[in-house]
Amino acid sequence: MNFCNQCGARVELRIPPGDLIARHVCDACGHIHYQNPKLVLGSIPEWEGRLLLCRRAIEPRYGYWTLPAGFMENDETVAEAALRETQEEAGARVELGAVFSMISVPRVNQVHVFYLARLGALEFQPGEETLEVRLFDEGAIPWEQVAFRTVAATLRHWFADRGKGSFGFHAEDIR
Amino acid sequence: MNFCNQCGARVELRIPPGDLIARHVCDACGHIHYQNPKLVLGSIPEWEGRLLLCRRAIEPRYGYWTLPAGFMENDETVAEAALRETQEEAGARVELGAVFSMISVPRVNQVHVFYLARLGALEFQPGEETLEVRLFDEGAIPWEQVAFRTVAATLRHWFADRGKGSFGFHAEDIR
Repeated sequence: MNFCNQCGARVELRIPPGDLIARHVCDACGHIHYQNPKLVLGSIPEWEGRLLLCRRAIEPRYGYWTLPAGFMENDETVAEAALRETQEEAGARVELGAVFSMISVPRVNQVHVFYLARLGALEFQPGEETLEVRLFDEGAIPWEQVAFRTVAATLRHWFADRGKGSFGFHAEDIR
Repeated sequence: MNFCNQCGARVELRIPPGDLIARHVCDACGHIHYQNPKLVLGSIPEWEGRLLLCRRAIEPRYGYWTLPAGFMENDETVAEAALRETQEEAGARVELGAVFSMISVPRVNQVHVFYLARLGALEFQPGEETLEVRLFDEGAIPWEQVAFRTVAATLRHWFADRGKGSFGFHAEDIR
């Protein structure tokens, strides 16, 4: 960040009075530009024991497999974000269950949250950011080609919990 | 937002190609400025059945009572943010338990997350943004003077769950 988005003057990176963290501060208009982590919301769409994965048509991780997920937008709830991303990326309507995983990734300033979900019908199709959408049995999950560690962790927890017969809530960090 | 924080040129609010939402776009350098919801992290510090609340020394809701909580920062995890805010606002060290509530507030583009927590010792003191810190029995909670609806909802769930003898996870929205 080089310029103030309020007044256009140059900003300076320093610790404001009463703060502990360096911020981009504008001396012309006084605005302090805070930067905070972003939420990524997604779902784990299930159909008769199989899970729906999307093969990415964009970077990062072009060609790798992921759960439908993306950045939460302003003016929506976490559940609305998960439903929207599932519709946009997988062309799928799901019924959301409980929140299943919440994974902090401080290296990229993100928190990833995934909902349990059931496909409403055997209908799905790749959206603009997706090459291919497919249902996978546990044995067919392309573990070596899963796009993100948060997705791999969420899938592992899902199959482990299914094995136990009970789905919990999983909060963890990826360093 | 009026100016590009990368190059200082004026930005325009419009829907970029392939997008569905209006963004602040810079025609000079091509940068698209996304704005996303912020995470607010806090804890529910408990000591022998009583909960620790902070009376706010800042706006909004100056003088009202709240759980220790604040904006998650870059380079930290959700748990680290909850611990830091509890230390900063209440001068208290806690041991975090499970994530207890996750409440979307789309009107202000925030998601509030609270952890179960135990005070490590009977030690707390107001930080710079706090007038007073005090432990409350259920009967003494100043419900009419609770600062935020997410805090009131979290407190109600906490006492209800304690009554049932089991603490769950509560995801909801406040419109």
